[in-house]
Amino acid sequence: LSNFLKRIIVALILGTLVVTALFIHPILLYIISLIWIALATIEFLHILSLKQIYINRFFIILLNLAIPTIFYFNGSRLIYVGLLFIVFIYSLYKQEQYYLVVPFSLFAIFYLGVLPSHLLFLKVWVRTHGLSSFIVLFPVLFTWLNDTAAYGVGSWIGQHKLASKISPNKTIEGFIGSIIVSVLFSAIYLRAILPHISAFAMVIIGLILSVAAQIGDLVESGFKRSVGIKDSSGILPGHGGFLDRVDSLLFTAPIFYYILLYFIAW
Amino acid sequence: LSNFLKRIIVALILGTLVVTALFIHPILLYIISLIWIALATIEFLHILSLKQIYINRFFIILLNLAIPTIFYFNGSRLIYVGLLFIVFIYSLYKQEQYYLVVPFSLFAIFYLGVLPSHLLFLKVWVRTHGLSSFIVLFPVLFTWLNDTAAYGVGSWIGQHKLASKISPNKTIEGFIGSIIVSVLFSAIYLRAILPHISAFAMVIIGLILSVAAQIGDLVESGFKRSVGIKDSSGILPGHGGFLDRVDSLLFTAPIFYYILLYFIAW
Repeated sequence: LSNFLKRIIVALILGTLVVTALFIHPILLYIISLIWIALATIEFLHILSLKQIYINRFFIILLNLAIPTIFYFNGSRLIYVGLLFIVFIYSLYKQEQYYLVVPFSLFAIFYLGVLPSHLLFLKVWVRTHGLSSFIVLFPVLFTWLNDTAAYGVGSWIGQHKLASKISPNKTIEGFIGSIIVSVLFSAIYLRAILPHISAFAMVIIGLILSVAAQIGDLVESGFKRSVGIKDSSGILPGHGGFLDRVDSLLFTAPIFYYILLYFIAW
Repeated sequence: LSNFLKRIIVALILGTLVVTALFIHPILLYIISLIWIALATIEFLHILSLKQIYINRFFIILLNLAIPTIFYFNGSRLIYVGLLFIVFIYSLYKQEQYYLVVPFSLFAIFYLGVLPSHLLFLKVWVRTHGLSSFIVLFPVLFTWLNDTAAYGVGSWIGQHKLASKISPNKTIEGFIGSIIVSVLFSAIYLRAILPHISAFAMVIIGLILSVAAQIGDLVESGFKRSVGIKDSSGILPGHGGFLDRVDSLLFTAPIFYYILLYFIAW
């Protein structure tokens, strides 16, 4: 199979799986979140290990999976605080590089536990309020389209590098092009699913999410570049690593969730 | 002046200042919080620099001072999110050790921006609800007493080391002794200021806060030990560094605040 064909097949399988999970009972999205979080966490800890930063993989995966789990089963947040304390006391006694372990553990929990859980938060919130699952699909579709537009416009007319040191293929033209495409998409899509939102708000949402998606991508690229690698792993044929596929969504899903909760009156 | 006398004088000056700030208008506690946060942040960034971790001092102090400031003046949290984005994009373009800068910056913001601001949150909450300022004094007095009891009991009958690698002077006897003293203190003090709380709750609060205070101390000691120093600085005559004085309060103030908000019915 050619690389291009592999890429298409993997994209179709993952895409179908994710879209299905967004539309049926939240339990499927919960299970997919567990897999997504575990894989991305493993890749991230691998990236850190390239710089001799060793974090207890078992504990961080446990803590990251505990976030959607406690949320999904309505567990008390105190359970989580207790888990955190156990891990940090353990680290205090067992681990050498304490000054590295604590900040990197907390960062890994925030970046690959808290952020990815927001898609599930969104799903449950939408369901609880009897709203359309197309709302949950929005950040996913948006992020995919935004990434594609940045790549497409960049390949087509890109001349000026956006961040040559971190991500040599990104261009300013791609950046601006993806904002335009994303704003248009937001306006059309949100008009259909949330008709009472003003056109101005739709444009702003598109703009914020497009910038956030591209920053999410750059942040992950920044990590990879500064440790000297290009892909987070080779797990997905034709796509590079798992974290590479979700880096933008890590930023867009939470931001969309909070915009929806705090700025859009129901 | 002998070291002991210096220690007493500094303690009296700081103690008077802090207790005054807790009882009068919140603006004074806000100003003291700014000073406290700035000094502790500078010391922490210095500790990191001993391991060649260089974080932009200006940005982190700005972000840490922004937390109590935005809170105090009822600013939008969006201002803060905007500030964060600016800093991380700046880091992406300007800083070499990106994989270190991002997690350590976020940790420094959490540890020395978010946590210390909780004393001000508590003060404002107490004032808004027309409650006694003695509630705000509680975590401060508690933490000071707990530290003193751990040291006193440890010196008196301490035989077994608690965490010999991290903090060689701490003993298991001091740990248990301070829990007993703290639980008794909680019961007496809280009975006077919050009489409707059950005796059981008072004991639990004392227990949780005593353990939290000692963990807070160990966490900071863990940082110092793993970079090879004993005091966070020599700024306070007879007391070592500033961070050394507040390490326990960083944990007890937020925990007490959340216990009060979420577990005690008013």
